Amino acid sequence: MTPFASTDAFFGQLDGLPGVDAAARAEAEARNGQLTKPPGALGRLEDLALWYAGWRGDARPVLSQPQVIVFAGNHGIAAQGVSAFPAEVTVQMVANFRAGGAAINQIAREAGARFSVVELELERPTGDFSAGPAMSDEECAAALSIGWEAVEAGSDLLVVGEMGIANTTAAAALALALYGGAARDWAGRGTGLDDAGLAHKCAVIDRAAALHGDLGPAEALRTYGGREMAAMAGAIARARALRIPVVLDGFITTASAAVLECAQAGALDHCAAGHRSPEPGHSALLERLGKVPLLDLGMRLGEASGAALAIPVVRAALACHSGMATFAEAGVSEA
Amino acid sequence: MTPFASTDAFFGQLDGLPGVDAAARAEAEARNGQLTKPPGALGRLEDLALWYAGWRGDARPVLSQPQVIVFAGNHGIAAQGVSAFPAEVTVQMVANFRAGGAAINQIAREAGARFSVVELELERPTGDFSAGPAMSDEECAAALSIGWEAVEAGSDLLVVGEMGIANTTAAAALALALYGGAARDWAGRGTGLDDAGLAHKCAVIDRAAALHGDLGPAEALRTYGGREMAAMAGAIARARALRIPVVLDGFITTASAAVLECAQAGALDHCAAGHRSPEPGHSALLERLGKVPLLDLGMRLGEASGAALAIPVVRAALACHSGMATFAEAGVSEA
Repeated sequence: MTPFASTDAFFGQLDGLPGVDAAARAEAEARNGQLTKPPGALGRLEDLALWYAGWRGDARPVLSQPQVIVFAGNHGIAAQGVSAFPAEVTVQMVANFRAGGAAINQIAREAGARFSVVELELERPTGDFSAGPAMSDEECAAALSIGWEAVEAGSDLLVVGEMGIANTTAAAALALALYGGAARDWAGRGTGLDDAGLAHKCAVIDRAAALHGDLGPAEALRTYGGREMAAMAGAIARARALRIPVVLDGFITTASAAVLECAQAGALDHCAAGHRSPEPGHSALLERLGKVPLLDLGMRLGEASGAALAIPVVRAALACHSGMATFAEAGVSEA
Repeated sequence: MTPFASTDAFFGQLDGLPGVDAAARAEAEARNGQLTKPPGALGRLEDLALWYAGWRGDARPVLSQPQVIVFAGNHGIAAQGVSAFPAEVTVQMVANFRAGGAAINQIAREAGARFSVVELELERPTGDFSAGPAMSDEECAAALSIGWEAVEAGSDLLVVGEMGIANTTAAAALALALYGGAARDWAGRGTGLDDAGLAHKCAVIDRAAALHGDLGPAEALRTYGGREMAAMAGAIARARALRIPVVLDGFITTASAAVLECAQAGALDHCAAGHRSPEPGHSALLERLGKVPLLDLGMRLGEASGAALAIPVVRAALACHSGMATFAEAGVSEA
């Protein structure tokens, strides 16, 4: 029994999800103006605290239960030779996540976040989208549902990420379907393609785009997305339902999230961008979404690593907002 | 009994401070190439881990004792009306630091760092450098010594920062003395000057530069620097002596650190830039020093806040480097 029997059932409920709590945000803004610092001197930390307060409905919030989920899926398009790594690496890396040996294990632990990995039928890759749709309606709905159900109601910050050999190809094809252009506008070197590899990847994407033609956002997700990408979209929407702010990871996560925004304007207002990937399509997506990442450290690993690295920034922003003394409390003269 | 009887005694020993451990760095590089990620996929986290390993002389280091010190001093130049806040705010903010109510208290706690504040004769401001040198040789040597002695030998990362009303004016005058140009190249709005305030601040600095003429780095520090600025320089040099890597904070900290680099090329090789301040002189200094900040979040508060926010980035970099599995350990296929 999954929450969504069809892809349309998922997308049809997006417009009923909650908005920001304007009163809590206004109260947080008033507090921010009284803290012992020159106005605006904490820069984006102030913006982050106000954003978080508004979405949590709490003018003086604390962060105590960040949750990091990595979704893993396999892609039929991998058979086209679009990745520098073989497809069996997806299942091998899932084992590495479970054993605690991957980068995200270290970063999530240092950030004080709960970490889990959700594998989506790794033995059954999606269809090869250069020949037909990646997922049936039922498969897409099931993946959306798995993501929706993976978010814990007690979490107070959500980071989602992915593992899936060939999924930068799927993300580039999805971004092209959502925003137009050609494969060269969206595809990059992924885990390390050379020039010939990149040219081949672009040819595969352009051919698929010509095959499938214009698609709406839900159809684009079903046609190009991996199960892990649908699951991330489902989790991000569930976080909105639960008033849990989200920090977005890199190119694949952002492409998956963009499906929601294209389906329902404002659907990503509860999301901040965590880290800018050097994968060129990521900056193009962030510009479309109007989001400026908190970090820009050249990370291009996926598996939620960039966004999880931003958790301490959110934590510090909230600690300052909620823990600092006011000018009156501290007896400090104002300007 | 202070370690340095004169300013020259401090600067004279800089060339004997230790260099990087090339063997430890090479060993760390070999390990980095075997970790379960595509080559370079952790971006600047990899550079940070290798830099840290080299300075600590440990190919697989952990971070357990970061230390944050805020030095506070008062400036005679404040009498010229160059700050938006009155001079008594320095001592009021020191009390706020001790009570735990300032931004740096929250950020240092979240970063798991020990925090201390060192006040330097707040009741006795430095001389007004628009009329004469800010410090005597003895005063400068005493402040350098206090900074030198404030660093704990057991620390494994050092962040220094400052509090001192009017010290962006002192830092701009110091930067001008070190690198040339005019006040407009180095002075910014500090805690919130308007256009007229900024023009006045620049006029004060240009007048002082004409009064004092060309100065070497040690003389420039003595002439323009506050005691907290000399103390930061002393602490950064002591960290080098103890093989403790340093994360630099904003404009005033970086100007104080630049004195060391101008006196002895390479003296800041054990330092990473933590955060880019919007104070325009900071970017100019960073360019001169060849350092790219880890963070760029619009913070302009001083008190070590930007650098302390970068501690979790260093922590994550080392956790990945030292904690991740290798391809062989995890049984993951390589590209």
